[in-house]
Amino acid sequence: MAASAYAYDYFNVSFPAEYVAHVEINRPEKLNAFIEIMWLNLSAIFTRLSHDASVRAIIISGAGDRAFSAGLDVQAASKTLTPAPDQDPARFATFFRRHTLEFQACITAIEKCEKPVICILHALSYGLAIDLSLACDIRLATRSSALCVKEVDIGLAADVGTLSRLPHAVANASWVKDVCLTARVFGADEAQRVGFVSGVLEGKAEAVGEALKLARLIASKSPVATMGTKEILNYSRDRPVADGLQYAAVWNAAMIQTQDVKDAMLSGLQKRKPTFSKL
Amino acid sequence: MAASAYAYDYFNVSFPAEYVAHVEINRPEKLNAFIEIMWLNLSAIFTRLSHDASVRAIIISGAGDRAFSAGLDVQAASKTLTPAPDQDPARFATFFRRHTLEFQACITAIEKCEKPVICILHALSYGLAIDLSLACDIRLATRSSALCVKEVDIGLAADVGTLSRLPHAVANASWVKDVCLTARVFGADEAQRVGFVSGVLEGKAEAVGEALKLARLIASKSPVATMGTKEILNYSRDRPVADGLQYAAVWNAAMIQTQDVKDAMLSGLQKRKPTFSKL
Amino acid sequence: MAASAYAYDYFNVSFPAEYVAHVEINRPEKLNAFIEIMWLNLSAIFTRLSHDASVRAIIISGAGDRAFSAGLDVQAASKTLTPAPDQDPARFATFFRRHTLEFQACITAIEKCEKPVICILHALSYGLAIDLSLACDIRLATRSSALCVKEVDIGLAADVGTLSRLPHAVANASWVKDVCLTARVFGADEAQRVGFVSGVLEGKAEAVGEALKLARLIASKSPVATMGTKEILNYSRDRPVADGLQYAAVWNAAMIQTQDVKDAMLSGLQKRKPTFSKL
Amino acid sequence: MAASAYAYDYFNVSFPAEYVAHVEINRPEKLNAFIEIMWLNLSAIFTRLSHDASVRAIIISGAGDRAFSAGLDVQAASKTLTPAPDQDPARFATFFRRHTLEFQACITAIEKCEKPVICILHALSYGLAIDLSLACDIRLATRSSALCVKEVDIGLAADVGTLSRLPHAVANASWVKDVCLTARVFGADEAQRVGFVSGVLEGKAEAVGEALKLARLIASKSPVATMGTKEILNYSRDRPVADGLQYAAVWNAAMIQTQDVKDAMLSGLQKRKPTFSKL
Amino acid sequence: MAASAYAYDYFNVSFPAEYVAHVEINRPEKLNAFIEIMWLNLSAIFTRLSHDASVRAIIISGAGDRAFSAGLDVQAASKTLTPAPDQDPARFATFFRRHTLEFQACITAIEKCEKPVICILHALSYGLAIDLSLACDIRLATRSSALCVKEVDIGLAADVGTLSRLPHAVANASWVKDVCLTARVFGADEAQRVGFVSGVLEGKAEAVGEALKLARLIASKSPVATMGTKEILNYSRDRPVADGLQYAAVWNAAMIQTQDVKDAMLSGLQKRKPTFSKL
Amino acid sequence: MAASAYAYDYFNVSFPAEYVAHVEINRPEKLNAFIEIMWLNLSAIFTRLSHDASVRAIIISGAGDRAFSAGLDVQAASKTLTPAPDQDPARFATFFRRHTLEFQACITAIEKCEKPVICILHALSYGLAIDLSLACDIRLATRSSALCVKEVDIGLAADVGTLSRLPHAVANASWVKDVCLTARVFGADEAQRVGFVSGVLEGKAEAVGEALKLARLIASKSPVATMGTKEILNYSRDRPVADGLQYAAVWNAAMIQTQDVKDAMLSGLQKRKPTFSKL
Repeated sequence: MAASAYAYDYFNVSFPAEYVAHVEINRPEKLNAFIEIMWLNLSAIFTRLSHDASVRAIIISGAGDRAFSAGLDVQAASKTLTPAPDQDPARFATFFRRHTLEFQACITAIEKCEKPVICILHALSYGLAIDLSLACDIRLATRSSALCVKEVDIGLAADVGTLSRLPHAVANASWVKDVCLTARVFGADEAQRVGFVSGVLEGKAEAVGEALKLARLIASKSPVATMGTKEILNYSRDRPVADGLQYAAVWNAAMIQTQDVKDAMLSGLQKRKPTFSKL
Repeated sequence: MAASAYAYDYFNVSFPAEYVAHVEINRPEKLNAFIEIMWLNLSAIFTRLSHDASVRAIIISGAGDRAFSAGLDVQAASKTLTPAPDQDPARFATFFRRHTLEFQACITAIEKCEKPVICILHALSYGLAIDLSLACDIRLATRSSALCVKEVDIGLAADVGTLSRLPHAVANASWVKDVCLTARVFGADEAQRVGFVSGVLEGKAEAVGEALKLARLIASKSPVATMGTKEILNYSRDRPVADGLQYAAVWNAAMIQTQDVKDAMLSGLQKRKPTFSKL
Repeated sequence: MAASAYAYDYFNVSFPAEYVAHVEINRPEKLNAFIEIMWLNLSAIFTRLSHDASVRAIIISGAGDRAFSAGLDVQAASKTLTPAPDQDPARFATFFRRHTLEFQACITAIEKCEKPVICILHALSYGLAIDLSLACDIRLATRSSALCVKEVDIGLAADVGTLSRLPHAVANASWVKDVCLTARVFGADEAQRVGFVSGVLEGKAEAVGEALKLARLIASKSPVATMGTKEILNYSRDRPVADGLQYAAVWNAAMIQTQDVKDAMLSGLQKRKPTFSKL
Repeated sequence: MAASAYAYDYFNVSFPAEYVAHVEINRPEKLNAFIEIMWLNLSAIFTRLSHDASVRAIIISGAGDRAFSAGLDVQAASKTLTPAPDQDPARFATFFRRHTLEFQACITAIEKCEKPVICILHALSYGLAIDLSLACDIRLATRSSALCVKEVDIGLAADVGTLSRLPHAVANASWVKDVCLTARVFGADEAQRVGFVSGVLEGKAEAVGEALKLARLIASKSPVATMGTKEILNYSRDRPVADGLQYAAVWNAAMIQTQDVKDAMLSGLQKRKPTFSKL
Repeated sequence: MAASAYAYDYFNVSFPAEYVAHVEINRPEKLNAFIEIMWLNLSAIFTRLSHDASVRAIIISGAGDRAFSAGLDVQAASKTLTPAPDQDPARFATFFRRHTLEFQACITAIEKCEKPVICILHALSYGLAIDLSLACDIRLATRSSALCVKEVDIGLAADVGTLSRLPHAVANASWVKDVCLTARVFGADEAQRVGFVSGVLEGKAEAVGEALKLARLIASKSPVATMGTKEILNYSRDRPVADGLQYAAVWNAAMIQTQDVKDAMLSGLQKRKPTFSKL
Repeated sequence: MAASAYAYDYFNVSFPAEYVAHVEINRPEKLNAFIEIMWLNLSAIFTRLSHDASVRAIIISGAGDRAFSAGLDVQAASKTLTPAPDQDPARFATFFRRHTLEFQACITAIEKCEKPVICILHALSYGLAIDLSLACDIRLATRSSALCVKEVDIGLAADVGTLSRLPHAVANASWVKDVCLTARVFGADEAQRVGFVSGVLEGKAEAVGEALKLARLIASKSPVATMGTKEILNYSRDRPVADGLQYAAVWNAAMIQTQDVKDAMLSGLQKRKPTFSKL
């Protein structure tokens, strides 16, 4: 699918290598802070990439050097966050719940995307930036990353993913509570030490380079195998081991029949790089 | 609520800063080892703190320099742990199950407490000390901390929380099995490296200072926001991500309507510290 | 039970210390790669060890210096992995699902074994070696360990345990996705840093020595206590904390009645090493 | 919202009473059998009705006297159900899984619709008709209803809802297995006896009349109360009682604050019919 | 324990037969409608009965002939249900959630009571009467019973148990939705037909007689066996079958060792009625 | 596979129709009461039938006219049920838990059998007979059936399946508690009314005839379809609807590719009976 299929005001989508897509949040003048149209578009982009046969791995980063994303554009969101005087509390609650469920679904579109997603948390990465990164598969940071679970600072418990995904992504429960309750800023080294990111690069350029290397490596594998690996890992995270095993057995009963297994095995024996057909 | 409301023989409860409570286990001559009345009182204290509008963050530590707590006072407990000769095994099992469920509920009262709890595992911290700390939100240690999941040494699988909470608090499954099966003592550095504690301080005084700093920081936030953050993190730890998201959406549908959000946002714009009404 | 009860072509089973068994994968000329008979035998061995009253802790390692195990013997497995031309896809899927469920059950036999199992991932440890190690309780590595979640390289999502157990064993979700999606080789230091292994020893000899030390320590405890500890930790890993607590209370209602508790407590007071009867 | 907002080729949407919508499947010449565009439209309709403030209860029935729906239009679906010769099985499986997940989501849109839905299973109601009815809240039949879980007759296990919802809707496990495994046709009396439908009316006209009566009754209640009732019942069906209770407590914490409660209580005292504002 | 231990203003507790307790809701002048002190006392009574060794089965009914219970005393509750003008919505939500959780816990005390509870839904049984009955084990009705899930009529989704327990107690999902969404009154025959009650007696006297017969029968069994039966049934209701089986195996590992099994088996052989010691 | 492959002392296995197996419990002189070798053999038989390509539906009944089965042979079991004097309670508990888990697994082999199983509860059907029948798919009774959940009468909570499966098979919670707590005998009409059986026949001969008719009907369907239908229904019984849907989508992604779908659809159009290849 051509890049033109992915033309949105606040996102640049490019294809820096075969089977690799790069999604860039593009509102640098506002530190890539999010307004509503942006998460709707984000969801549309990842839903499309999920089934785009010419894509096997995806990178997401922010435009400019100052921020991956400053999070929610609070000023723009303030209307949503504030009931009108005399509005019935149950009716505002209903409005807000519908709004939140839709917002959550937009972020979850990244998790549901069949292709692995690598997130570069360069420079400022606050609030929604953390929520978003937790729906991605692999997280990288840069030396200058400034990370923050910011929501308590605006009087809120984070509700688009951080509080639900972080305890499953980083099992250092004490640290998780610390950063979520204090909204303190933490850096790349701490993020790596506790396991929130799996790599720290010098600057944004190096991080994009590393992400591209990772993405190309993933894209060189059978897309049937990487899709299944992402799916079964996500499925198992949320369930007892026995359920994960049962799901894997049923999943592979179809997938094992692919030509890719034969090709991969033969290439292995012949020490050459296999080519897989599109998925 | 005045400190006098929290007068118990084996606990000192003080209020070292606005909205901050400090609970001290007070049986230093026995290394703060627990007898039954103590966990009943512990539960009463945290149940009351949970709804005490003048409290927003809580610290727990042990009196004296030798121990946070040596755990269960095994000598005192031996009657509970031993059936009388010729007692019907099912009837003793029933007695013991009732006893354990009540004991567990007392420790879980800390987890259920709506306010964040910071635990200082200074010096000796054995057995029940670990169970108790895992029901807290944030764990700190000191250089001289000596930590031990002690239960196998008295012929028991730990049953008031360590075995159920540790695999969710520290996902280094190999280390968890190691310390639980061997009952070996481990120190602060190891505890921090594997993610059991999120900070290590020089001595007890420094640790109390750090805990107080953390507690004041948490207490400066909207109590609606910190209560929700603790609640949703605990809820999500135990459930699939999708369930956590749904719960967060319903939770915030009420909580977003608070004046705190408006105040927090306005204070943010005006670069001043907000004041929140009691909760 | 005599070692002769454990005579299998591809496994050496020895008893290097009282109450300690050592299982060695014995196909060094093929880097201890697995063919079908081997996982069937592995399951038979651990099912028997589980109830063998003369065993309280188990070590597993590979014969030779080159590998713990190179994983699945792909050449031997290729028939299983490939449907015949014109075979009905649903019927091959059924064959393969049955095969996978049986294969999984063989690996899970280690997890179900009532006695703690220590795995030494020395030298080459690829694919199935990782699946197998995740069904063990404690994992050690050596300086020269070369570890790899290899399955995507043969066009497959791993389906005998790695993808279902790894997210619960190592909660560094970004790293888990990285190694599972790229099939890159990682070493002992990285394995320890992220919490996949809890110890790194110089060479295989040192690792076996350390494992033996750990095994003897575990074997010196009440077998009632260590069995319960393994059981409740595994149970709790897969369930909400509240369910783990309830299970622990019911479990201990019977187990507390053992003579071991009295003996362990008395030995503790008398500063001597207790002796426990067989289990 | 005007009926014109609901104009679709294969559906008639009308508003027979205040706050009551009636959705009619409109392909009577094919016994209201479904082609793909129809379930996409069905989903669009119910997603819109869910938030339509002028709707509080919904009826669904089929056009004509011969069938509620004959189910899937198998002839039209045959392309989707059949891989091309030589198509890679994993790639067809991926295509089919995507297709099924989307199809399921369309049917689940009825369950997710915030407003209660009453389904009239008049005359022929086969296959997909049963799947669809199980996503509704209340099911009625007519004397001449001919009901059938038809899927095994085309070589398939039903996968758009019947097999997942029926065991939770009718706990007569023996009967559920009987009708799902044999694909035998059963009538209204049997359906009522086992609890699949909660009412049987003489003919379609009477059934529509009864459904309208029910819908008007539901529509006369506070929409906050009926929305919550549907939500908590569906939530609790899928979870332990303790989770249902916790969810209900959080849900009502916002909803209790509605003006509707005051109005309903006052109307009760004054023995008059309350009026509730839109939701 | 003497009846005097159970002296509460709004409850009569008597012991009509050996090992049988009868709890009567005693506010007949208000149709046994509940005010807050009553559910607190109800909880205290059942918590005590749970461990009262002289009790093996419990009956609950209402004083007078007009009602088992008219449910919540809405007038008395109105303060709880209504926020003060200008009260912060999050703070009222917090107050109300705490209130609801405590209220739910009081009703759940019946479910947690170790002894089986038989509920007689005679005459008027509205709202809270249904919630309460669903926490009991066995439900009986009388010819004149008038049953109603009343909550939507006061603008509320029921939140003290009906919506969470009914879908697990009566799997006629269509009927459950019908009665919960319409708040229509239904009679004893309908209640029996759908499986909400398991017996219908002529009048209250006959129902009390039948309940007493049932209670005596249950009380004649081993209290170890009936306690375990209630516990495992409740546990299994909320979980997968595999979890229920595992729990039953662990539960019985202690309980099988009771003298009661030997006595029951011997009595069976000797065709005489066994006597069991207290529990 | 020939009947000779199924030669066991206490079971007759015959093949009364194409693709139909009939398993008869054969210890009529003891009312088909079970001793240990019998449940081991039962498991072996159903594990083999599960993969026997010449079998698509199975009937189970008891030899003779007096009983389907009187349940556990209590006299033979008494050794297992009774600890030796002075046996360590934890060690007996361990022995008994292992025993129970193995016993449960034998009964669960019927549930895990891929082919649908029809159980005829003719005449006396007590205790283990009920456990066993609940692991089957379809239950039939005869006019003279005398059914009883007998376990409390020997001082036990049933632990090989009834208490875990009955709440999911018959959602008349009040009736379930009644029959499990009282051990009263109930007849066929009651069993049918509450949904425990789905058919009642005059005598054993008629019941076998009806079961054979049902079995032949099921055996005439695609074995891919009936296997999937049993599997997804059992899977969904134990899980939220959303999980059932996801599993069904993955399951069918492989199964839809079978030739059976094409054959079934073509046969449907041509109004002839399809033939399916073996599974």
